[in-house]
Amino acid sequence: MKAFMDEEFMLDNETGSRLYHSYAESLPIIDYHCHLSPQEIYEDRRYSNIAEIWLGGKNPDGSYAGDHYKWRLMRSNGVSEDHVTGDAPAFDKFLAFAETLEMAIGNPMYHWSHLELKKYFGITEPLTPENAKEIWEKTSKMLQEDPRLSTRGIIRLSGVRMIGTTDDPADSLEWHEKLAAEPNLGFEVLPSFRPDKAVNINKPGFREYISVLAKSVGKETFGSAREVIDALYERIDFFKAHGCKASDHGLDYVMFRPVSMEEADRTFAKAMAGEALTKEEAEGYQTTLLLALAKKYHREGIVMEIHFSCSRNVNARMKEFAGPDTGYDMIAKSNCYDELAGFFSALDYTGELPKTIVFSLDHNDFNQLATCIGSFQSDEIPGKMQLGAAWWFLDSRDGMEEQMRALGNLGLLGNFVGMLTDSRSFLSYTRHDYFRRIACNLIGRWVENGEYPAREASLQKIVEGISYRNAARYFGIE
Amino acid sequence: MKAFMDEEFMLDNETGSRLYHSYAESLPIIDYHCHLSPQEIYEDRRYSNIAEIWLGGKNPDGSYAGDHYKWRLMRSNGVSEDHVTGDAPAFDKFLAFAETLEMAIGNPMYHWSHLELKKYFGITEPLTPENAKEIWEKTSKMLQEDPRLSTRGIIRLSGVRMIGTTDDPADSLEWHEKLAAEPNLGFEVLPSFRPDKAVNINKPGFREYISVLAKSVGKETFGSAREVIDALYERIDFFKAHGCKASDHGLDYVMFRPVSMEEADRTFAKAMAGEALTKEEAEGYQTTLLLALAKKYHREGIVMEIHFSCSRNVNARMKEFAGPDTGYDMIAKSNCYDELAGFFSALDYTGELPKTIVFSLDHNDFNQLATCIGSFQSDEIPGKMQLGAAWWFLDSRDGMEEQMRALGNLGLLGNFVGMLTDSRSFLSYTRHDYFRRIACNLIGRWVENGEYPAREASLQKIVEGISYRNAARYFGIE
Amino acid sequence: MKAFMDEEFMLDNETGSRLYHSYAESLPIIDYHCHLSPQEIYEDRRYSNIAEIWLGGKNPDGSYAGDHYKWRLMRSNGVSEDHVTGDAPAFDKFLAFAETLEMAIGNPMYHWSHLELKKYFGITEPLTPENAKEIWEKTSKMLQEDPRLSTRGIIRLSGVRMIGTTDDPADSLEWHEKLAAEPNLGFEVLPSFRPDKAVNINKPGFREYISVLAKSVGKETFGSAREVIDALYERIDFFKAHGCKASDHGLDYVMFRPVSMEEADRTFAKAMAGEALTKEEAEGYQTTLLLALAKKYHREGIVMEIHFSCSRNVNARMKEFAGPDTGYDMIAKSNCYDELAGFFSALDYTGELPKTIVFSLDHNDFNQLATCIGSFQSDEIPGKMQLGAAWWFLDSRDGMEEQMRALGNLGLLGNFVGMLTDSRSFLSYTRHDYFRRIACNLIGRWVENGEYPAREASLQKIVEGISYRNAARYFGIE
Repeated sequence: MKAFMDEEFMLDNETGSRLYHSYAESLPIIDYHCHLSPQEIYEDRRYSNIAEIWLGGKNPDGSYAGDHYKWRLMRSNGVSEDHVTGDAPAFDKFLAFAETLEMAIGNPMYHWSHLELKKYFGITEPLTPENAKEIWEKTSKMLQEDPRLSTRGIIRLSGVRMIGTTDDPADSLEWHEKLAAEPNLGFEVLPSFRPDKAVNINKPGFREYISVLAKSVGKETFGSAREVIDALYERIDFFKAHGCKASDHGLDYVMFRPVSMEEADRTFAKAMAGEALTKEEAEGYQTTLLLALAKKYHREGIVMEIHFSCSRNVNARMKEFAGPDTGYDMIAKSNCYDELAGFFSALDYTGELPKTIVFSLDHNDFNQLATCIGSFQSDEIPGKMQLGAAWWFLDSRDGMEEQMRALGNLGLLGNFVGMLTDSRSFLSYTRHDYFRRIACNLIGRWVENGEYPAREASLQKIVEGISYRNAARYFGIE
Repeated sequence: MKAFMDEEFMLDNETGSRLYHSYAESLPIIDYHCHLSPQEIYEDRRYSNIAEIWLGGKNPDGSYAGDHYKWRLMRSNGVSEDHVTGDAPAFDKFLAFAETLEMAIGNPMYHWSHLELKKYFGITEPLTPENAKEIWEKTSKMLQEDPRLSTRGIIRLSGVRMIGTTDDPADSLEWHEKLAAEPNLGFEVLPSFRPDKAVNINKPGFREYISVLAKSVGKETFGSAREVIDALYERIDFFKAHGCKASDHGLDYVMFRPVSMEEADRTFAKAMAGEALTKEEAEGYQTTLLLALAKKYHREGIVMEIHFSCSRNVNARMKEFAGPDTGYDMIAKSNCYDELAGFFSALDYTGELPKTIVFSLDHNDFNQLATCIGSFQSDEIPGKMQLGAAWWFLDSRDGMEEQMRALGNLGLLGNFVGMLTDSRSFLSYTRHDYFRRIACNLIGRWVENGEYPAREASLQKIVEGISYRNAARYFGIE
Repeated sequence: MKAFMDEEFMLDNETGSRLYHSYAESLPIIDYHCHLSPQEIYEDRRYSNIAEIWLGGKNPDGSYAGDHYKWRLMRSNGVSEDHVTGDAPAFDKFLAFAETLEMAIGNPMYHWSHLELKKYFGITEPLTPENAKEIWEKTSKMLQEDPRLSTRGIIRLSGVRMIGTTDDPADSLEWHEKLAAEPNLGFEVLPSFRPDKAVNINKPGFREYISVLAKSVGKETFGSAREVIDALYERIDFFKAHGCKASDHGLDYVMFRPVSMEEADRTFAKAMAGEALTKEEAEGYQTTLLLALAKKYHREGIVMEIHFSCSRNVNARMKEFAGPDTGYDMIAKSNCYDELAGFFSALDYTGELPKTIVFSLDHNDFNQLATCIGSFQSDEIPGKMQLGAAWWFLDSRDGMEEQMRALGNLGLLGNFVGMLTDSRSFLSYTRHDYFRRIACNLIGRWVENGEYPAREASLQKIVEGISYRNAARYFGIE
């Protein structure tokens, strides 16, 4: 029996262990997609206790922010909402989480939490209801006092080289600017361009958002889809001047319904007049924007990320009570690969397909997605088209292994750009460690089983590539 | 090499073996969903040979009853129908099954059959065409003579605490009543409420069934959907008075099309007039009934089970020849999770969502389903919403492991209510043993791999919970 | 650590190793479905270097032919098209492939390539950019000079008993005829009937093809669907006279829309008049043809193969540049199992369902497909309805294991007809070896884990069956 989560955690073979400790463990982290607040990094925020950094809760403005992964688990254990997002004392919430964790055998949350306790607090015993008080006290003291546990401290301690935040096109990027001006910061915080609100013409708030976007380019509003695109182009230039390497698109599903710019303009006008759109009209406008944005990304060398297969806020009562991103999402099936291929094909036809990473939340899609992107590779860069890492609900050993097996079977695993946290928590960098262990273990197992030769140079290249170097090359991080 | 199906069957690690033998093996069984006949239990039926209890065949009324899992396998081996459901001598059928079993490597039927031979007949060698005669004679003698091998004997020998049968709302429950009056029975036989025939307004026989249901509440017929609901409510009260803990809904797919009661009434009237319904009309009526029933279940503390993703009777020739449930069903893909979430959300919104277990026959659904139910948990009870056990076609080591991994990754495996047989056979209780071995093995593997600490108290709690205690708590079995 | 791809490759347990070496390794090969050229076999073509036989490239007529599996991988590694299908020197292409292969850890191409290097060239070290030159020289010399490495030599060296080519109904089968007349050929080359062009009424080129088909039966054209069917029947007789054992249907999806022959005739007339068809019309015609063909196959004892779940040529730019079958296909999701079951049911109803093998490219379909075919078995032959082997994109250890587990769990693995190459390459017979190793390993693992008894006779029967004997029985190869 292996010891609980020791140095050999997730490493069940010698080659995998050697590869991890020799090549993967100490490489820097490129966290090219997350939801951290650049303001909190700039202000070097500190936390008063582990409930605050792990669980979060209600913000001063009445909204909720925190780790909805943990909230879901607690609710599954019958924890009442006042101990999840509510007003119960912080320690009581932490205790309820400790009780929940005991039942979470086989859940990546068990591993993430203990990797974090070990890495940042030096705690190696399992968190239990019995030792929760002791761990609470130790971690609170450290969070309040240890200089290494401010947000900047955590980032440095984690060996992070680059953080890609997620930002609205209208964002002033003032905190990114301030961070860029900091001497000796030790890491980069770069904005990512996420224009969902300008694309989602069929969602509530579109018209209000158009005013916000217009203001960001010094206008009152826009009169056409073309003007929206021009504004987004201007903002992409602005983002790029602030170091932006990536964009992100969160889609319910991938649509591909090319229409003329005139038709997109008409649809935009209709939406701005408050009229309801047909699905076809909305898709025409969306396709127009996505194609235009993709071409711009290609020109600017910005990576396009596409996320889909998620149904959000499926619990109406809790949506009203706590708002979005509070733990009420579910995996959605997708049947839009012909559209995705059509989108890629249209861009590739004119030589304007950007580097693209596609993420599906549905593990059943991995094979299909791997064969889709495999039809659009080119000599611009090895692995131009990427099967995105196992993400969110799939961010587990099983999910990661399945994603890497799919990519291994149907593409070139050696060119994989690897892990991202997609996280809202400053402690979540250990997920890169989790990923590297699982990747090295899988690779080591193949080698030990005689399926790939034990050539050290090749293995080093592959492991370092997946852990760090492929992402550095892909995003152009020197 | 491990010995063939010995005490350590399915247990490949020490921790798993210890957990199984220490905590799981001897716990009672709650078989909360099966298709056993309460009459046969009351009458303490005996069987004259193993073909009768294993294979079944033609009933006196010309219909067919027996283990269609076995029938399918035999047909896959080219066995002619007269040796499956036909008039061939019973031993010849058993021999054909033994020949089939030889080719069934990797099939759970191989394991179930040998677990049954071992548990009930003390036979530990593999069944082969060569020893079929000898086994036939030994088992026939025991079935006819051994007092432990009557239906009641088998149930007691299996350590069954509760049997949940599957019953039509119009059922008189006379056999349940008689069983309840038996002194020293040693186990409970409780009815489950399955109102499919009242919901399936678009299937043949609906009108005839309405008369049957009406009669059960002392009426001639019903004039509205509201009256159907009232009658079902009355029958739920009657079932509850007979100990009912669970309801069951077998749906082709999950629909969610809320309509007014007036519209449901109109649709009902149309159906009763023999007019064809549109899909939308049928779905409106069905949604109305399902919502009304779910609310009643919530009020009464009755668990709602929902089964879907099955296409039934796909072979038209054999449907005519042998009728339904004779081995001609297949897994169906489902794309109804938005509807399922909509259904749950509508009930949750008014605080009327009952404890619910959802079963899909498609293993590709496990992740999506786990995230769907995870959006509707509450503090009523830990694990209020359950991802149903691997069922029917998925009732294999691979299916069970995949279901438990999905639940482990995306929910709290520790709160899982565990196994059901869904069986028509009195010998099938060994499937609970099969499940417990597989569950303990999986948990043990995680512990041995350092992924969960070797804390005995937690492991005992989890293993006993999944094997028995969670179901006892969930169904309110003291 | 096991040695790299030695005699025990893919064999991780003793029983599996013993089964493979004792029973599977030396059995002949029935490659019942491939895309080899009978002309090249007849002419006993030789290759001048390994790039020619492995990679292929532009044909004299400007089209492209070669191993698009390898082309895809090279493009994923950023290799430019001139080194893939273009005019770069042959060795440079081979070197680019060697560089690609280094990154292909976990890809079956890694294994296939090295199995081929070992089997046909005696090369046991891994191919790398460093030794590519040396291997190039050795293999070129052998391909040019070694009498065992002509096409016929390779086939004999591989122990091939039967090759099923893929042929258009209008094909003259002249090369098959010549091969049949060869004394001491040592293997059979039999045509397979693939009438896709006559079925695909909604695809470009249909009218032109009808003329070609008509010519093959001595007519100018056809005036009705009935005449098309009559012509196909005549060609089936002709194929059968040349030893045809199998037909093949490559469908985008399975349709089932039975219409009258009059309606099919009308649709045919409409198509021949150049009018656009509705989807329903096309499906009606297609269903008519598929039903008619299936019935004929049943009468003639010809196996029906059905392949689906592939989206072809999704990259429009490369389709224009290089044409079809050049590495731009992707897996498609299918939702046509009700139609597939309807098709089978209609044929079974009248006793006219032929032996059928169904292949899906989507591994998520395996369970559903296994339960679909399991509803149409009969006593004509054990395993009349077959779940096709893991194919094309699934032709990996993971894909094969998943297919065999699905079949094992839901049918009778012992009756599986096993592997096919579906290949365009004469060196690809080692994939049968790959498959046999993986199958024996899986079976051995079950035995070693006590899940199936170590009865040598049964294991020999199962392993020999899956490797060779089941296919021999199924296709009637003496």
